[in-house]
Amino acid sequence: MKVAFQGEAGAYSEEAGHDYFVSAEMIPCESFDIVFDKVFSGECQSGLIPIENSLAGSIHHNYDLLLRHKLHIIGEYYLRVRHCLISFPDAHLAGITHVMSHPQALGQCDGYLRNLGVKTRPVYDTSGSVKMLKDSGERNTAAIASKRAAEIYGMQILEAGIEDNPENYTRFIEISPKIVAPEGDVKTSIVVSLKNIPGALFKALSVFALRDIDLTKIESRPQAGKPWEYLFYIDFLGVVNEESVRRALNHLDEYAIMLRVLGSYTRFPLDTFKPLA
Amino acid sequence: MKVAFQGEAGAYSEEAGHDYFVSAEMIPCESFDIVFDKVFSGECQSGLIPIENSLAGSIHHNYDLLLRHKLHIIGEYYLRVRHCLISFPDAHLAGITHVMSHPQALGQCDGYLRNLGVKTRPVYDTSGSVKMLKDSGERNTAAIASKRAAEIYGMQILEAGIEDNPENYTRFIEISPKIVAPEGDVKTSIVVSLKNIPGALFKALSVFALRDIDLTKIESRPQAGKPWEYLFYIDFLGVVNEESVRRALNHLDEYAIMLRVLGSYTRFPLDTFKPLA
Repeated sequence: MKVAFQGEAGAYSEEAGHDYFVSAEMIPCESFDIVFDKVFSGECQSGLIPIENSLAGSIHHNYDLLLRHKLHIIGEYYLRVRHCLISFPDAHLAGITHVMSHPQALGQCDGYLRNLGVKTRPVYDTSGSVKMLKDSGERNTAAIASKRAAEIYGMQILEAGIEDNPENYTRFIEISPKIVAPEGDVKTSIVVSLKNIPGALFKALSVFALRDIDLTKIESRPQAGKPWEYLFYIDFLGVVNEESVRRALNHLDEYAIMLRVLGSYTRFPLDTFKPLA
Repeated sequence: MKVAFQGEAGAYSEEAGHDYFVSAEMIPCESFDIVFDKVFSGECQSGLIPIENSLAGSIHHNYDLLLRHKLHIIGEYYLRVRHCLISFPDAHLAGITHVMSHPQALGQCDGYLRNLGVKTRPVYDTSGSVKMLKDSGERNTAAIASKRAAEIYGMQILEAGIEDNPENYTRFIEISPKIVAPEGDVKTSIVVSLKNIPGALFKALSVFALRDIDLTKIESRPQAGKPWEYLFYIDFLGVVNEESVRRALNHLDEYAIMLRVLGSYTRFPLDTFKPLA
């Protein structure tokens, strides 16, 4: 099985893929658009893309791609992002004077790096920083990336979990051209835009509340190019073809300009998450 | 009047400050934490910070800082982010082979830069890239930053508005230790976490819908360190001390674990925005 992801070998998306799929060939892609293309064309059976991060929020661009393509969400996975300080195997922490990585990773380790008293250098991506380090031969420089990036390039992890905020996780979704019947505890993701009528949002949420359907996410987003309309990202517990959900979505459609079901899929058993209510 | 902002001279936050305040001394700060400190200590009368971007979403870190500090939102401003390609005054577009900027700015101009066929180089911030360019003396390199950054460093704007998506704006808020009575059309921002009771979110929104109070934003966010609770960011139209809003918030408090009013302030007259419903 081939699974497309955005980034280079050793990226956090690849790490998530290795955790989530028992065995799959992870195919690196330059952009998320290419991930969607490879899945849509059948070159890859699935794609694994980040959809939100606990610190940085929802990845709007990937929601946009989901709306533009006829692919389905068929699974989800939460990756706890653990940044590692990576060096040559014969380098020592005491000798590190420079650290390079993607600016977001550098920012998420800011407290740690200040303590270390090192200079930082921004580069394009986390795993790429390990590759650049390897090519440079520098023993006084370290990179920040995933554990997997260290393994791939045969480098040493000087310290793991150096992020300032331990509550750093990224939610990934598996996308596929085929619908797969989900098992167990199921979540459904939809995107909806509402008619401009009084109390539209309240009415929209009533279709779930009146049927005791629990929400796990709601987010409003002003729409690019349609300044008078908002998009809503909504996740709820339940499968799209069960009676109460079917009725709720039919009911929601009465208030909607656009309603798109992105998919029903087995909920990741993250016991640190539960319904919004 | 002194206003603290995060970034260097020429940053988009400074540009927003120059638009929003008729005359104010904009004080650059290394981090958002320092902005809050300077405002809290009285060293600056106000701070101007970004709170959400139309492409990148809400800036959770700044919501966290609002919750940790006793400061009030007393105003808002929307900045249309227009990236400029900036070079030495005697350089020509045809001779540009390299472009440097913050990776987010490079990403937002990806299509334009591909067309141009240039190599890109990530650096720490947009205005800093203009400063670095000036120091380097390179005529074959351009930077991507605000119009203001070009002015400050006496550089040339080769092309303005080079971002791929024109719907790129950032919402800024003014923070102050003092409450200011807002005039005209007023918005109120709150953060609330809800008790784990069935239909809690629906009940929470009913306190507004039942009183015909329009929402302009709602977003759920899992809480760092409190995995069983969600935070909600809610903006609505109305001022905190008017009867219906007072009653709505008292009502909301019945379902809340934590309820914090961040401030009531004059709504920015952006005619491209209107209530969610």
